[in-house]
Amino acid sequence: MPRIIAIDDPADPRIEPYRDIRERDLVGRAGGFVAEGRVVIEKLVGSSGCRLDSLLIAAHRLPTMADLLARLDEDMPVFAASQAVINVIAGFPLHRGLLAIGRRVDPPDAGRLLAALPQAADILVLSAIANHDNMGGIFRNAAAFGVRAVLLDAACCDPLYRKAIRVSVGAALLVPFARLAPDTDIPGLLARHGLRMVALSPRGRIDLVDLGAAPRNAVLLGAEGPGLSARILDQGHSVRLSMAGDFDSLNVATTSGIVLHHLFVAARRGG
Amino acid sequence: MPRIIAIDDPADPRIEPYRDIRERDLVGRAGGFVAEGRVVIEKLVGSSGCRLDSLLIAAHRLPTMADLLARLDEDMPVFAASQAVINVIAGFPLHRGLLAIGRRVDPPDAGRLLAALPQAADILVLSAIANHDNMGGIFRNAAAFGVRAVLLDAACCDPLYRKAIRVSVGAALLVPFARLAPDTDIPGLLARHGLRMVALSPRGRIDLVDLGAAPRNAVLLGAEGPGLSARILDQGHSVRLSMAGDFDSLNVATTSGIVLHHLFVAARRGG
Repeated sequence: MPRIIAIDDPADPRIEPYRDIRERDLVGRAGGFVAEGRVVIEKLVGSSGCRLDSLLIAAHRLPTMADLLARLDEDMPVFAASQAVINVIAGFPLHRGLLAIGRRVDPPDAGRLLAALPQAADILVLSAIANHDNMGGIFRNAAAFGVRAVLLDAACCDPLYRKAIRVSVGAALLVPFARLAPDTDIPGLLARHGLRMVALSPRGRIDLVDLGAAPRNAVLLGAEGPGLSARILDQGHSVRLSMAGDFDSLNVATTSGIVLHHLFVAARRGG
Repeated sequence: MPRIIAIDDPADPRIEPYRDIRERDLVGRAGGFVAEGRVVIEKLVGSSGCRLDSLLIAAHRLPTMADLLARLDEDMPVFAASQAVINVIAGFPLHRGLLAIGRRVDPPDAGRLLAALPQAADILVLSAIANHDNMGGIFRNAAAFGVRAVLLDAACCDPLYRKAIRVSVGAALLVPFARLAPDTDIPGLLARHGLRMVALSPRGRIDLVDLGAAPRNAVLLGAEGPGLSARILDQGHSVRLSMAGDFDSLNVATTSGIVLHHLFVAARRGG
């Protein structure tokens, strides 16, 4: 169990990474990310792709943290401060009272991720998902349905942005992901790895429920509005969801949940 | 086409309902609600359950609003102001530049909603959904999959809260809903109207994919965490979703999407 380091001065240089959280959300952080709340931080502690740098805990919450702290190395920096001091450090009232700085360990590139896939695997390929709520929701669904990798194009936002991690309930720390190089031939890359392309579009040629099982699937999702490029839709199975005709609109994270649930069930039932 | 009323003074009493929007989100409004943005306001104009009270438009957006304005009655108050004046009225920078005040017309009670259902119909029964993002997401899915009515217990938030309307992309203005009286015998009410109870729970007895079609379904959803009461789960079909074992967590709005999609497809294919 690490020693607790008491912080009384919000200007203490040791808690520098926790300062002005919202401003740094906007300008970006050098290497690290911020994880909030117990459920998310437990996932960070258990993650193989990320490591914990340090923790900052509201002193009144320390008594309930013993089991979490017991899982940490002796030399892990664990800072404790009053709620009032934490609010000054963070720059806003931080009711969760539990923050961590983490960072990715040896982030994989897309090729390495794909080469490491098991025989049967579903992955996601995301295009221009720029909203952190949607990104977090997609990662939460990816974890719930056992997705093995997420590939992101250059127009996607960062899954390790503070809000995306929170909305993902920590799934962004667990599901491996990689950025695609801007000039990637996506259909070619997926074909080389034996991944069936399942490209979602309101004008898809196949209804999702008619899509049978395949050992390896790459589900391609684009931003609401523009959607996926015609080039992608022409080269894969373009798939639509049945909907009531008068309100033909689904959120992209919800869409990911419906499609991943379908593939998850199909794989287990030979659907 | 209504006459445009120019507003130069943010203190003009005619735009009183648009003042201090965020503060009034918190304290509540007398009867009306705020709808934002073109897509949502078009749904308000077309809604049978709600009516438009007035519009406030940023003057620079008027040229692109002609088709929307042409659908309005001659005597509908349409206010136009500069973006700067709108920001002062609203109390924050309102980039959408298009606001409406609306209100429900003759809001139905649960009994009247159920009595008016067609032979085949799916409805939602929501318990303690207190998060406006989730409420909006659930209504969006309800509209996408043709849900005929939403019943809310006393612990649910208001579907016509500004953010819930926005997240629903206007579906909260289209899908009929009613509050249940606190002492409602929900299983009894649903049974009297021939609605099969489909109660979602991570510990449900039936897997969703094994749930066949029925002409009338009531999908019951509780808040993440507490979930539905044991009494509800014991009296209906308690249904679970297959998930990867190590991350057994789905957002309630995503869950609603998966379940409603299943029922929508099952009804059309005799699933």
